[in-house]
Amino acid sequence: MRRVHLAVVILILITPFDRSSAQTQTLAARLGYPSDSKLLILHADDLAVAHSEDAASFDALDTGAATSASIMIPCPWLTEVAAYAKAHPDADLGLHLTLTAEWKSDRWGPVASKDTVPSLFDPDGYLWPESQPAVQHIKADEAERELHAQVERAIAMGIHPTHLDSHMGVLFDRPDLFASYVKIAREYKLPFLGMLGPSVSPEMRKSLSDKDIFPDAIVIATPNVAESGWNNFYVDAIKNLKPGLTEIIVHLAHDDAEMQAVTVDHPDYGAAWRQRDYNAITSPELKKALEDNHVILIRWKDIKKLMQ
Amino acid sequence: MRRVHLAVVILILITPFDRSSAQTQTLAARLGYPSDSKLLILHADDLAVAHSEDAASFDALDTGAATSASIMIPCPWLTEVAAYAKAHPDADLGLHLTLTAEWKSDRWGPVASKDTVPSLFDPDGYLWPESQPAVQHIKADEAERELHAQVERAIAMGIHPTHLDSHMGVLFDRPDLFASYVKIAREYKLPFLGMLGPSVSPEMRKSLSDKDIFPDAIVIATPNVAESGWNNFYVDAIKNLKPGLTEIIVHLAHDDAEMQAVTVDHPDYGAAWRQRDYNAITSPELKKALEDNHVILIRWKDIKKLMQ
Repeated sequence: MRRVHLAVVILILITPFDRSSAQTQTLAARLGYPSDSKLLILHADDLAVAHSEDAASFDALDTGAATSASIMIPCPWLTEVAAYAKAHPDADLGLHLTLTAEWKSDRWGPVASKDTVPSLFDPDGYLWPESQPAVQHIKADEAERELHAQVERAIAMGIHPTHLDSHMGVLFDRPDLFASYVKIAREYKLPFLGMLGPSVSPEMRKSLSDKDIFPDAIVIATPNVAESGWNNFYVDAIKNLKPGLTEIIVHLAHDDAEMQAVTVDHPDYGAAWRQRDYNAITSPELKKALEDNHVILIRWKDIKKLMQ
Repeated sequence: MRRVHLAVVILILITPFDRSSAQTQTLAARLGYPSDSKLLILHADDLAVAHSEDAASFDALDTGAATSASIMIPCPWLTEVAAYAKAHPDADLGLHLTLTAEWKSDRWGPVASKDTVPSLFDPDGYLWPESQPAVQHIKADEAERELHAQVERAIAMGIHPTHLDSHMGVLFDRPDLFASYVKIAREYKLPFLGMLGPSVSPEMRKSLSDKDIFPDAIVIATPNVAESGWNNFYVDAIKNLKPGLTEIIVHLAHDDAEMQAVTVDHPDYGAAWRQRDYNAITSPELKKALEDNHVILIRWKDIKKLMQ
């Protein structure tokens, strides 16, 4: 998720809307923790976009610095991620459903046959580069066909996804796209990153059930975070965690020639940014903050189990 | 071209078959050089496969260490190459027509709509990884559709190809595929890498005209070349050039994390191999050998002009 829609960002510290009686237990309690626990998913986005991204993300997953991650199925480095998934069957790997190809030099098309999803293409024959033209042009039935194809390709590659979310938040930007996203999550019995709170339109709420389990808050670095204050941004976020579920979304890669080339002319969420994210979440300061604040790290798999 | 079919490799030092009277002038003479000149195309394959490949190849083209190169249109880094092509309209860039995706971690599909070219896919949904299954499974009409789509995509991206050749020599491995390749070259009025000599079957000769201009010899490093003798391999090739046209085919990249990941588990034509190729063709020894042996560097563009 390079850009996160405002509707998601402002979720930070918004309390959830009323739950039905079936949901009166907190998520923490349902998972066997004290009701007022601070639960955290430390989530790495964008796997498969580049080898650099994969290498940094695998390392963070292996060491527990990240608990979860999600994969961009149309991207070039998918086979490397599929091999990792097969070698690490316990890894918490979801699908970062992708309807955009936002970089300048390294682009990709859809998984579905091109003839069947013509509205997904920009004039250069790749997925749209930004959310805005994507949301403007994509036909809902074609988007749903592509999302289906991405899930099926993942499964065919030996990946057993634990959850779904949306690259660049495109699926949160139009109610019919959001409905397709939720429909596919239900079809495959997968939890999905979703939204609550007053910013969510009644149209989008129609797709949701009171049994859906979402983070109460999402934290993601924005261009407003000073480079020198990168570690502090995450440490402060942990110090300020409230009871309930928070997801911290990071983008992990090494600041190397490949990632610099992938993200050329785009410092926001670029190679140096991703290296800073990697440095921050693997830092001893962050580890200490997690311990000092009694944070319980969980994974989307834990939520998936509650759905069964 | 990671693997070159034996039929191509053994062209080295094979003299061309008889030409018609229209062709009695040597290529050198037709280009305005002494009849017995040693002409050489120094050709970099595989552009667009990775940023590392592009960076090394652009550098070699910019400094004149390579005269020509060809582009893999289905590969992820095409937009970077298209930008280079537009910024360097004089660069001699052909299309490395691609029906295989041979690496383990970094793979690609076709340019044509998948539904229209089902025989081009391996069970994982990418192009076949090797020539043999590709040649075994690919239907000729689907191959031709894909080759067309690659040329059209190149043109749509602002690339004006100067010539055609074949990635991993797949198009040289079956007469009907070769016929499609030649047909497309004729349609777009492009010279193409071709074969002469007794190893070429009568069936394949049927596609050729006595006006076609091919290298008399092709030189390419194979796994038999010792790492310590890499520069000498190319210097010796230059010392042994015969009058006529030779093409030296190289694969240029940096031995960096990206290229090591692309070529993982495949030392032949791997990252270190490509770095050795880069070092060899940019070496002062090679430059001196070219001067000492009065080699005339030409480009596919020069041949294209003769076709007009």
